[in-house]
Amino acid sequence: MPGILQGDANSRSRLAAAVAAEFMGTFLFALIGGAVPAKNHQTAVCNGLALMVMIYATANISGGHLNPAVTAATLITGHTAMSRALAYMVAQVAGATLASAMHMLLVPKAAGIGCFGPGGGATLGQAFGWEVLTTMMLVMAVYSGCVGQPNFGVAGPATVGLTLLACALAAGPLSGAALNPARVLGPALVFGGCGSWAGTFTYLVGAVAAAGFSAPIYGAGPHLGRWMDAVEH
Amino acid sequence: MPGILQGDANSRSRLAAAVAAEFMGTFLFALIGGAVPAKNHQTAVCNGLALMVMIYATANISGGHLNPAVTAATLITGHTAMSRALAYMVAQVAGATLASAMHMLLVPKAAGIGCFGPGGGATLGQAFGWEVLTTMMLVMAVYSGCVGQPNFGVAGPATVGLTLLACALAAGPLSGAALNPARVLGPALVFGGCGSWAGTFTYLVGAVAAAGFSAPIYGAGPHLGRWMDAVEH
Amino acid sequence: MPGILQGDANSRSRLAAAVAAEFMGTFLFALIGGAVPAKNHQTAVCNGLALMVMIYATANISGGHLNPAVTAATLITGHTAMSRALAYMVAQVAGATLASAMHMLLVPKAAGIGCFGPGGGATLGQAFGWEVLTTMMLVMAVYSGCVGQPNFGVAGPATVGLTLLACALAAGPLSGAALNPARVLGPALVFGGCGSWAGTFTYLVGAVAAAGFSAPIYGAGPHLGRWMDAVEH
Amino acid sequence: MPGILQGDANSRSRLAAAVAAEFMGTFLFALIGGAVPAKNHQTAVCNGLALMVMIYATANISGGHLNPAVTAATLITGHTAMSRALAYMVAQVAGATLASAMHMLLVPKAAGIGCFGPGGGATLGQAFGWEVLTTMMLVMAVYSGCVGQPNFGVAGPATVGLTLLACALAAGPLSGAALNPARVLGPALVFGGCGSWAGTFTYLVGAVAAAGFSAPIYGAGPHLGRWMDAVEH
Repeated sequence: MPGILQGDANSRSRLAAAVAAEFMGTFLFALIGGAVPAKNHQTAVCNGLALMVMIYATANISGGHLNPAVTAATLITGHTAMSRALAYMVAQVAGATLASAMHMLLVPKAAGIGCFGPGGGATLGQAFGWEVLTTMMLVMAVYSGCVGQPNFGVAGPATVGLTLLACALAAGPLSGAALNPARVLGPALVFGGCGSWAGTFTYLVGAVAAAGFSAPIYGAGPHLGRWMDAVEH
Repeated sequence: MPGILQGDANSRSRLAAAVAAEFMGTFLFALIGGAVPAKNHQTAVCNGLALMVMIYATANISGGHLNPAVTAATLITGHTAMSRALAYMVAQVAGATLASAMHMLLVPKAAGIGCFGPGGGATLGQAFGWEVLTTMMLVMAVYSGCVGQPNFGVAGPATVGLTLLACALAAGPLSGAALNPARVLGPALVFGGCGSWAGTFTYLVGAVAAAGFSAPIYGAGPHLGRWMDAVEH
Repeated sequence: MPGILQGDANSRSRLAAAVAAEFMGTFLFALIGGAVPAKNHQTAVCNGLALMVMIYATANISGGHLNPAVTAATLITGHTAMSRALAYMVAQVAGATLASAMHMLLVPKAAGIGCFGPGGGATLGQAFGWEVLTTMMLVMAVYSGCVGQPNFGVAGPATVGLTLLACALAAGPLSGAALNPARVLGPALVFGGCGSWAGTFTYLVGAVAAAGFSAPIYGAGPHLGRWMDAVEH
Repeated sequence: MPGILQGDANSRSRLAAAVAAEFMGTFLFALIGGAVPAKNHQTAVCNGLALMVMIYATANISGGHLNPAVTAATLITGHTAMSRALAYMVAQVAGATLASAMHMLLVPKAAGIGCFGPGGGATLGQAFGWEVLTTMMLVMAVYSGCVGQPNFGVAGPATVGLTLLACALAAGPLSGAALNPARVLGPALVFGGCGSWAGTFTYLVGAVAAAGFSAPIYGAGPHLGRWMDAVEH
């Protein structure tokens, strides 16, 4: 009997397993990453490693996006089909939202946990700048480590997770270091916009912009990688 | 002359070496992981890395379970035989118990060291929820990294250890982040239930529940991995 | 359509892509590594991991030098041609300078951020000693992990980044642990010599000396590695 | 022109290169690992990672022992010849001693830096117990990751370094977590026994005992690994 994360031979069943993997992976990533109590370097370490292990856990099933910005970038460069991209994004946001709902059950004084916003005296514009640049760096790690040809095979997911870790150590005190629209939308939907729907919207625009900027860096087409091949077929 | 952790060609000798590896691996993992003095992020880092290196040290001998929840999950999905599973679990609990006894010898003011229980204002029910979800995440890492086909080969044990590290950073302050019935039972047997046999029992139920929930996620049968193949034969 | 980081088949286009990769990689490495607010172990972790992931991101395009000391050492040992070496160094310094300029935009109270200099009671001479020895260690990691034959393939960039991390934990409080002339020059150009052009010059001399000392350690010639092969052709 | 760390084809030249690698690797490991100012978890992280990267840097030249306890264990199990083992141990102690001498030059208020001894209320006997058990764990990681067949190839040196990191987090506050006679002898020779020659001698006995205990665990003979093969020939 195949498990939830395994599809039968036909491609419809395989797509369903991939969407389930994106949902579960993003749920567990956001559940763990959003719950770290201390807002300091532990948050960076926990989020980077939680992303890394969940990419490993889902890479061979869905490609391990776990992030609408990654899905959007690979959609733009032709590595992910439109229907699959939409299904992934819905699953990612649903997973992150469930994580925030679970925080209300499992964390004492949970209000606002997992929310993102500027800090350390930074303006919303400065936080926006950090989100754009760090998300571009994350997408660059995805292409070089996992999508490009040649890539770094077994080390690919590690480089993506550690990129988030390093970016969160540097930009975390100023922007929160979301680098992921699902991680922004999940707590915003559960905690009433996390204090500022305008801020939430700014972060989403930053991630979309970063995905758009990333496309001309690695480009489209002939360097379609083995990993994605395995996922699509 | 083969060492303790090497069996002769016949399978009975190989099973004995595997059980010895589970005992030694869990003993050293619990000895190191349970002794970290500061109850903060160092505990998470030490436990995650100690688990990682002990899985590497025993993976080619026993499969590197070192955790009755992992053994139970692989028993349910048909990757571990019943007799082997029982022998592993006894060895794991014995190793963790010896570690707690050793703590009494080697740590000044050792009373209660290595015990688990709710913290940070969390109820026992909330700690139970964290134990179930984080143990599921750990078992998911075991299947994707080590059991499934294709898996991540040489990176598999790293993903399992880093999952514990990330989970302990997030859930450690609330549940202690055991994710392992042997780690709960060892100190409980040595330190009189660690203050609450009901709490200890709750943690054990959580781990068994997580193993049961994990089976339908990755499923049984045709994806039996190379690693387990190597262990069984 | 190939991206910026992909060259066409002809070698002039490939060299341009490699120089672009050195620019972008050094820019993002310096942007993240130079911005960590707390001058403690977080700085070491962030810089080590940011270097690691950017080497992974550029290794298959430019060889992932991201450091004039590495380029100089491989020039001396005959692994990098003179014209390529000069182009790389210009790109590296330009990337680090842009990072410091970006810090002025994106970090509140940015003055002097990312600057290097002696600390913890160390004299400039002691800081010079640490820079020479730690840069030699970094270059040694580059040769053993990435250039030499056999090397450590997929783990090579990780060993280089973790060398910086370990060196920055030890020498960071005394010298700042630059290990990279571009990282020294970038903030010095933007923040008026970082308080001491003599100090800046001392650090640059230290890095050049380390590159010179490293050549007779690993030597030139017949052990030209696969990685560099891939980059040159 | 081959570098210092490269031997010509004849085996005498190759042995000289291996001994030079053990000297340089242990020197840089002790230089970095012994200099971390804060005696807390940063010490553990720095020492674990510095060991890891220096094993990577020397593994293909000398086997990357960098520790007389490792050399002694592989001597007992027949993986290292007696003449090579003696030369390695002399080089390791010389490297660690040079590192301590360098600390006197490069660290303000260097007296006693890098010394080991009991702490946190532990007796010398308790520190001895930790040294024996943690060194056994380290040697176990060496055999499973690097010597045994099958081993973990490219991940081997990482598992050894991370074992030291985890052990130093747990046992560091009680024993200092040397796990290495060269690291004990180096500062003791430079700083007059580090306050207690009896303590120094106890640590050396602990490491030798651990090497002796480790032999029957992994055993001798038919599982001679590829790595050592590559080194010997």
